[in-house]
Order: sequence, then C-alpha cells, then structure tokens
Amino acid sequence: MKKVGILGGGQLGRMLLQAAANYPVQTFLMENDNTAPASHLCHHFTKGDITNFEDVYQFGKNLDSITIEIEHVNIGALEKLELEGVKIIPTCAALKIIKNKITQKKYYESHQIPTSPFIITSGIDDIYTNLSFLPAVHKVGEGGYDGKGVQIIADESDIQNGFNSPAILEKMVDIKQEIALIIAVGNNGQTAIYPPVEMVFDSSLHLLSYQISPATLPKSVFWKVEAIASQAVKKLNSPGIFAVEMFIDKDDNVMVNEMAPRVHNSGHHSIEANYCSQFDMVWRIILDFPLGNTQSIMNSALLNLIGEKEYYGKPKYTGLSDVLAIDNVFVHLYGKDQTKPGRKMGHVTILSHDKQDLKFKVNQIKQLLFVQSH
Amino acid sequence: MKKVGILGGGQLGRMLLQAAANYPVQTFLMENDNTAPASHLCHHFTKGDITNFEDVYQFGKNLDSITIEIEHVNIGALEKLELEGVKIIPTCAALKIIKNKITQKKYYESHQIPTSPFIITSGIDDIYTNLSFLPAVHKVGEGGYDGKGVQIIADESDIQNGFNSPAILEKMVDIKQEIALIIAVGNNGQTAIYPPVEMVFDSSLHLLSYQISPATLPKSVFWKVEAIASQAVKKLNSPGIFAVEMFIDKDDNVMVNEMAPRVHNSGHHSIEANYCSQFDMVWRIILDFPLGNTQSIMNSALLNLIGEKEYYGKPKYTGLSDVLAIDNVFVHLYGKDQTKPGRKMGHVTILSHDKQDLKFKVNQIKQLLFVQSH
Repeated sequence: MKKVGILGGGQLGRMLLQAAANYPVQTFLMENDNTAPASHLCHHFTKGDITNFEDVYQFGKNLDSITIEIEHVNIGALEKLELEGVKIIPTCAALKIIKNKITQKKYYESHQIPTSPFIITSGIDDIYTNLSFLPAVHKVGEGGYDGKGVQIIADESDIQNGFNSPAILEKMVDIKQEIALIIAVGNNGQTAIYPPVEMVFDSSLHLLSYQISPATLPKSVFWKVEAIASQAVKKLNSPGIFAVEMFIDKDDNVMVNEMAPRVHNSGHHSIEANYCSQFDMVWRIILDFPLGNTQSIMNSALLNLIGEKEYYGKPKYTGLSDVLAIDNVFVHLYGKDQTKPGRKMGHVTILSHDKQDLKFKVNQIKQLLFVQSH
Repeated sequence: MKKVGILGGGQLGRMLLQAAANYPVQTFLMENDNTAPASHLCHHFTKGDITNFEDVYQFGKNLDSITIEIEHVNIGALEKLELEGVKIIPTCAALKIIKNKITQKKYYESHQIPTSPFIITSGIDDIYTNLSFLPAVHKVGEGGYDGKGVQIIADESDIQNGFNSPAILEKMVDIKQEIALIIAVGNNGQTAIYPPVEMVFDSSLHLLSYQISPATLPKSVFWKVEAIASQAVKKLNSPGIFAVEMFIDKDDNVMVNEMAPRVHNSGHHSIEANYCSQFDMVWRIILDFPLGNTQSIMNSALLNLIGEKEYYGKPKYTGLSDVLAIDNVFVHLYGKDQTKPGRKMGHVTILSHDKQDLKFKVNQIKQLLFVQSH
C-alpha cells in the first residue's frame, strides 16, 4: 500500500483525508499542531514545521509520494526528496512558480497567458515612481493568504498601505465577473476540467462571499475561460489539482488572476455537486488511477463560514440547527479549536436545480449561521 | 463539543467517522484491533473488547452519547451507562429486541407486524419434531452475521446442518423480491424514510450480490412496504437509524425479514445517491439536529467487494484501475489488513439516470474487480 504524506493539517488536509478513506493508501501528515483540523484523520501524524528543511526531509524520506495543502512549505527539502525518488505532487518546479506571485506573473508572461499588466516592486518607493500605473492592486510575492498581503492602491494616498517587500503591482481591471476553475492533471499529462464557477466577493474582507457552480457564461466566453485555464495549467507540466482564478472584464477579455497548485476553496462544492470531487481526484492522481468525471450533478452554491468580527476563542456555531433544517444544505465544519475574525471555520454547500433557489438559500443562511465564541 | 463514542471499528465505523468530520463532535472509538478500518479516523481510540462489561463501561462513562456499528456489544454495560445519563442510540431496549432473532420475531408478533411464520427451537431435535414445517430457514438467535448462522432446511436430510443453540425456524417464503429500507428516527420521534432498495442475493454465499435504488415497485406495494417498515421501527420507540429487510411474496404480501438498529449495508449507496447519507443522518440524530433529506438524487446500484475464494492474507485489489475508469463509479475500500473468502472488503456504488445502464455496469464491474491476496 502506498505511503502518502500531506504537508499541512488544515481544512484542505481534513477533506483530503475524508476522501482518502475510500482508497488503498496509508496516510501520513505533518503539522505543527496536533489539534489541527486534519491531525486526527491520518494513519500517522508527525508534529513538525512544514517550512523547516530538516522536518520536511525527515518526514518525507520514507514516503512514496507527498502532496501539499498549502504552498508555504520548505521546497528545498521537497527538491531533495524529489531527486531521491519521492514523487512530489505537484512537482517542485510547479510549486516554485506558483508559490511566489512574482514568478507566477512572469510565468504567465513567458507563456503568453493573458493576465493583467503588472510591475515588479521591491518596496513602496517603486509605487511612487509609477503613479501613472494607478489604480492598481499591490500583492506581496510570498506569504499572502486569504485576502492578507493584498492592498488596493487606488491613488497616491493609498501608497503608504503598500508592501516594503518584493511584490507585484497589478493594474486594476474593470471586472465584470470572477471565475474559478479546477483542473486535474494525471501522471501522463491527461487533464480533466471542472465546470467553471462564478465567485462573488465580499469587498470589505476581500474574501469569497459565495460561489455558484456552474457559472453562467456565454459559450464564446466559456471556451475562452477553458482554453486559457488549460494553457495556464498545462505549461506547468505537473500532475496534480490546480485552481485557476480568472477575471472577465467588461469587454469579455479573460485573464488569469492567480493559480493554486492544490485543492482549493473554489472547488469545495465538488464534494456534493460533481461526480468526482476535487479531493477524490487528488487520490486518483497520487495513486495513478484514471481521472474521475468532473461533470456537475446539479447546480450548487457555496459559502464560507467565517469567524465573526470581535469574537475570539472556542467557536460557537449559532443557527446550525436552523440551517440543517433547510433541504439539501451540506455543512462542513473544520473542527478548528479557535475562532477569530475572518478565519475560515467551515463552508456550506447548497444543491438545487434552480439557481434562484440557490441565491435565496445563500441569503437565508447568511442571516442564520454565525461563528462566535463561548 | 459533544463527546460521542462508537462501539466497533469496522467499515460502518469508518464511514461514520468520514461523515463525523463535518460536524462539531469529538469522536471516541473502541475496538480490539488498532488497525481496524475505523481505528485511525477517530479523535480518541481505546483498545478494548466491546463485548466485555468493564471495557464498555469504562469507555462510556465520560461520554455524552454512544452508538454502535454492530449489535454484538455488552448491553449490560450500556444499560448501566444509560441509567447514569449517557445517551445510548439506539436505546438498550431496542438493541435487546433486535440483537436476538428470537426476541425480534416475538416483537413482530406482538405488534402485528407481518413476518414469516416461525417456531422457536433450542436444538435440531426441535426441527425433527416439526417436519411438516419444512422447507424452512434455521437462524441462530445470537451471533449470526453476513450469512453465517443461517441454514436452509429444505427437507429432513438438511436438519443435521441446523443449530444446537436457541434459534428460530422460519417457514420458507416464496419470495418475489427482497427489499430493504432505511428509516431515521430523531429524538422527538420524527422519522425520515429512505426510498426502498431492491436487493439481489447471491444464493450460494447468502450474501448481497447487488442492490438497486430505488426499488421498482407498484404504488400499492410501495405503500405497504413503507407502512410496515415504519410500524416495525416506530414501535421500538428509539432514536437512531434502522434498516428493515423485507420479503415480497408472489401474492404481493409484504413481511419483515429482519431489522438492524444501525447503519446498514443496504444504505451505503446513500453516500452518493441520496441528499443525506445514512452516515450523515446518524450525526444529525446524535447531535440533535433536524433530520436530513432522504430523497434519491439519482438511481444507483451497489455491489459489495468480497474476498475471493481461496485467498487469505494482505489484500490485493485487481482491476481497480479499470473500474475507476468507468464514469460515475464510486469505490469504497475498507482498508482491512487481511482478506479471506467471503469477507466484505469494500463496496462500489454506481450512479446513473438509467437503470439498464446500472445493471450493465454492475456486470462489467463484477468481471473486472477482485479481492485476492499478495
């Protein structure tokens, strides 16, 4: 039975391990916190720092394969393991490109993959010398996550909010729609594309408000979305699951915003709404089985369950009973020990044949379900 | 967060724990074998004998609730725990009725629930004194499982195969269809009924060959099936998930064959084929949330993956890749360390709108997928 390691024990690891239990695989997990969401669901838990060379190397050296649930891992150790014959999914080369927003942008540029215009900055001084480029979005090269490490620089007065570390300054796009799409790549390069989803963001937290699958798109735009996302993923030459977030502007130009080389929030609906979930797909790839069917079973909406403002500590889920009384609503709590404002504590998927019904239920659930603390 | 214990660490416990990860619950599991299918998926594993009074009592005394994945547990300990305020789901009273086929038959009789005629026997001598009752089926009172503890006594020459322990001798029914149906009962007595499934048995092993959901039944029979199963479950006055296996004879008489007070093989398809799976439903009941939607999403077939004859030892799954290449096929392997002839090693669910397509794929999979050993 293959020995497969996961670096990171958050909700993505948790859902990966829920799916792993259907497959012939022995699971290993490394995470600093043995109460993390995924820690108890593996066969073998190792307490360790996924950003530390020695920890990652020692964890990996007796494994057949390693995958990640977060990009912020020690790639040096993974490269050594890869050389020694441990299969790293995605490959270290792909991880390195995507992990840093600067190398990611350069990758799009070198492969003629449409993306918004950008300038590489080493500090806020570089923004002052490019005032004509504003309005723009400043994104740190490494370490940004869930809306952190991103600042809107509308005009000169916002520049002080920028980052004094390597970053990219992206030209603001006049966005009509935000789309995300999950692509699976097998070991022989075969791909399977999930239907695109439409993401609706909460502008204040820069967090996903809700998402609808499949997105409503004119055929011509749909083909562009699929072609560009496929190109963005295929040029990485790496097996794995990839999420591609894209902008569609007022003129129906499609451009890649960013990618993730792993299961992604924008694919969580696939657990119930698609034949083969993104988590199931990862095991098919790692264990070298054929890719699954990515088709939608039904329309779905997905909303994240976020720690309420001002609440810190042991989470209390109010309204859970009311939400579970609504038909075809699937609540996934991540089992996090502590809530804090803006923290992702779970998600809710809604299935319905009718998209209006989905939006109605999204709003209903937003008024019912809150994560506070005891 | 509620502390919930599961007695038994087989595949049912495994699938219960896969579903538990969506809910706010701390899971405890007791099983004699720490490599059992469910052992690694709980928060807290206790190595112990679920049939031993002291083991079960010590395991349960600090828990809020306990459920079971097998009836063969120490009910004395559970009764003491129940008196001390631990919620046992199903109740000990219900467990006691169902655990023993003799008390189960008497229960049907006393509540006028249709069931095949029977005689209680204490040994094979009692069969010899009831020759006119043959052909019949001899079933041991306690300890029968997966086709064991059941013998067909067609005529006098078979009597030697009967059991010399308390048992029931059931009149052979001229069966047209075998049906099973899962019913969920909430803490306030509310019920939710899953669509009935049609079971097709392998006569040699007396094991399920495959099952189709929902069963194709004339309306009049469907109502009878639902009414009789509901009655059989409701009179137990216990929360929990119950499986009711029923015979339909040539004259469309419906009778209860037997019940299980827990998640059941006949409900495994519900993971993919119904909005709320039987495993999800258990957590809703234990955590006192509303019952979920039992409706079918799509037609489904389910087949068990059984250890091949003559193979013993570390399992080897041949044909897994070929089966996973078929669209909308869901393989659940139970992670058992050892295979042996007739052992349930996993199951396969197939989704399709078309029942003919389901039967075609069942046959295809039966010719592809085998559990042998290394």
